[in-house]
Amino acid sequence: MSLSPAIQRLVEALRCLPGVGPKSAQRMAFHLLERDREGGRRLAAALTDAIDKVGHCEQCRTLTEEPVCGICRSDSRDRSQLCVVETPADIVAVEQATDFRGLYFVLMGHLSPLDGIGPADIGLDRLAERLARGEVAEIILATNPTVEGEATAQYIADLARSHGIRATRLAHGIPLGGELEYVDGGTLSHAFSGRRDL
Amino acid sequence: MSLSPAIQRLVEALRCLPGVGPKSAQRMAFHLLERDREGGRRLAAALTDAIDKVGHCEQCRTLTEEPVCGICRSDSRDRSQLCVVETPADIVAVEQATDFRGLYFVLMGHLSPLDGIGPADIGLDRLAERLARGEVAEIILATNPTVEGEATAQYIADLARSHGIRATRLAHGIPLGGELEYVDGGTLSHAFSGRRDL
Repeated sequence: MSLSPAIQRLVEALRCLPGVGPKSAQRMAFHLLERDREGGRRLAAALTDAIDKVGHCEQCRTLTEEPVCGICRSDSRDRSQLCVVETPADIVAVEQATDFRGLYFVLMGHLSPLDGIGPADIGLDRLAERLARGEVAEIILATNPTVEGEATAQYIADLARSHGIRATRLAHGIPLGGELEYVDGGTLSHAFSGRRDL
Repeated sequence: MSLSPAIQRLVEALRCLPGVGPKSAQRMAFHLLERDREGGRRLAAALTDAIDKVGHCEQCRTLTEEPVCGICRSDSRDRSQLCVVETPADIVAVEQATDFRGLYFVLMGHLSPLDGIGPADIGLDRLAERLARGEVAEIILATNPTVEGEATAQYIADLARSHGIRATRLAHGIPLGGELEYVDGGTLSHAFSGRRDL
């Protein structure tokens, strides 16, 4: 082998990053060692710090190093609207793209009976308690438009209905800038049945 | 901002990696925190370890945590052949692709007068001492086929000649699997003038 053990270990460790194969890992290792040791040290410290401290928000289950996350703590959010997403990354996407000012609830996954992931594993017991408290007026289901995401949304909609709470689902349809010709049949069918007056 | 400070710091720190933009950095951070904290810890440790220990080989200047690298230390390498490359990654490429069994010398860059990078900055003083010792019979110039790489190769070839040492340069030509039609003019011209008997 033409790499020394410490460099080899670094290359292998970098492969835990998603989307990083052997070539990129080697390029990253050499880049850090040749040109950015300061950045590498900062990365090691930030990694250790985040891994040691970050847990889940007591209220919405998102990743945060505080007991309750910034959004749940905020006074300026509308507590009557609750947007249910699968992952913390979905919160970032919704916050960046929309002017939603309600709260979130993060499932950290979706229902998947075949993998043994049931309602309690995605925090639905805690969600039910929260709905029972009566603060939430609308629950916005923003799970992914996959089979599991749809099933999870259905399940939570039933839960909301049993508490007399309105449940809405993000609209399906043609993505902006997409071409009708290339949109898949399921999406086109949803876009048709969901058409609106102009 | 929808990310807590520790996560935000991790996302920013990940951007020191080459080819990692804001989206990938966020994906990496969430992946490590949600699914691979063990891998993240291993990465932090490997980073710190490599950055603390890795320096340059006393003989060939490649990156290694030992005073002299494995290849320079090896008894089974041919000390009469010296392959000059720009970076440690080039050693890996040559070792993987060829059956070269000589030694290497790593410039850690190339001559670039406009950037103030002169012969001493790429270790040519040390290379001259080594050539003066008389052990090297052939110096193989494997710098990149760029303007700077060619100029650097020329400079080292002159240095070798002044010590009466043979200097060779990697062949330029049509890459395997390439199509003549799409090969650039410079490469095609090199391939023509470098043609061989079949």
